[in-house]
Amino acid sequence: MPHIELAEDLPGIRGLMAFRPETAGPLNALAEVLLRSQNTLSRGERELIGAYVSNLNDCDFCSNVHSAMASHYLSCDIDLVAALKRDMDAAPISDKMKALLAIAGAVQLGGKHVRSEQVDRAKQCGASDEEIHDTVLIAAAFCMFNRYVDGLDTRAPVERQFYSQRASQRALEGYAGYNPLENTQT
Amino acid sequence: MPHIELAEDLPGIRGLMAFRPETAGPLNALAEVLLRSQNTLSRGERELIGAYVSNLNDCDFCSNVHSAMASHYLSCDIDLVAALKRDMDAAPISDKMKALLAIAGAVQLGGKHVRSEQVDRAKQCGASDEEIHDTVLIAAAFCMFNRYVDGLDTRAPVERQFYSQRASQRALEGYAGYNPLENTQT
Repeated sequence: MPHIELAEDLPGIRGLMAFRPETAGPLNALAEVLLRSQNTLSRGERELIGAYVSNLNDCDFCSNVHSAMASHYLSCDIDLVAALKRDMDAAPISDKMKALLAIAGAVQLGGKHVRSEQVDRAKQCGASDEEIHDTVLIAAAFCMFNRYVDGLDTRAPVERQFYSQRASQRALEGYAGYNPLENTQT
Repeated sequence: MPHIELAEDLPGIRGLMAFRPETAGPLNALAEVLLRSQNTLSRGERELIGAYVSNLNDCDFCSNVHSAMASHYLSCDIDLVAALKRDMDAAPISDKMKALLAIAGAVQLGGKHVRSEQVDRAKQCGASDEEIHDTVLIAAAFCMFNRYVDGLDTRAPVERQFYSQRASQRALEGYAGYNPLENTQT
């Protein structure tokens, strides 16, 4: 049960955004820039970083939402994150993405866990300074979103379908104009 | 040395915001709403939550910046955060703030570390749902800012004066219109 009184039918971050629209604005604007705006990392790759960090943070809601988004954009199995955690080397992603996900995993532990060798490896695989910056900030932002969602003990639907059904609509509409009270969006 | 090429004379988050102004906008808007806009928690109390979490995250730059801000608003010793960590019970803050800082400390560990008893205690001390919400989101946001600043290995000036000198100017100008390239601000 959520730690504060939220509209009962709104799961995860939706209930929190309806509760406090003043903070929802900048949070959605940040998600829009990081995950959807023009970038040399694809939308699917950026959603995958968010899903991976959310999974490491054990945040069911964010992990499911962003795994479904990554799956939608990358046309891959929704369980790609689980596969990444089992065996990153064998996962069907580029070496650059593997190196960036290693950096994201270090950020999840704490900023000072990122090692120069990890950054060097990403650069050797072709990652630009902008891509390394965005990987660190996406991972850091999900450390915020995950703590926000779980720190207030919000509800996460268990049905996988809940997330996959909404991914295509969210992909279409984005985060910036997101209204948590509209039933068509997660 | 920073992991990516930043303007050399800009420390901490300033170099990152100059590097990527597109993400600086939403980040500063979030800080403005959380730390400065109308609230039943004072600006000093909210800066103290940010300073406390930054200290727990071992982020020197953010810990110093926001300790100086809290000190400015609360007219207290800049070492209040160190005193809080030594002996929270003995610290010269309200029981409500002690309860909220305990929640912030749990958020720093991870969202699922926040216990119902901690929330109940804060409510017994008079904290509203809005105050509990904002405490969780401030703590979560600093888990992002701290990872952003340290994950890219930015420079943090060691001179205490650097932070205290800039606190009053920042208090005056706020975060929303913040331009990292202006020398008058941290």
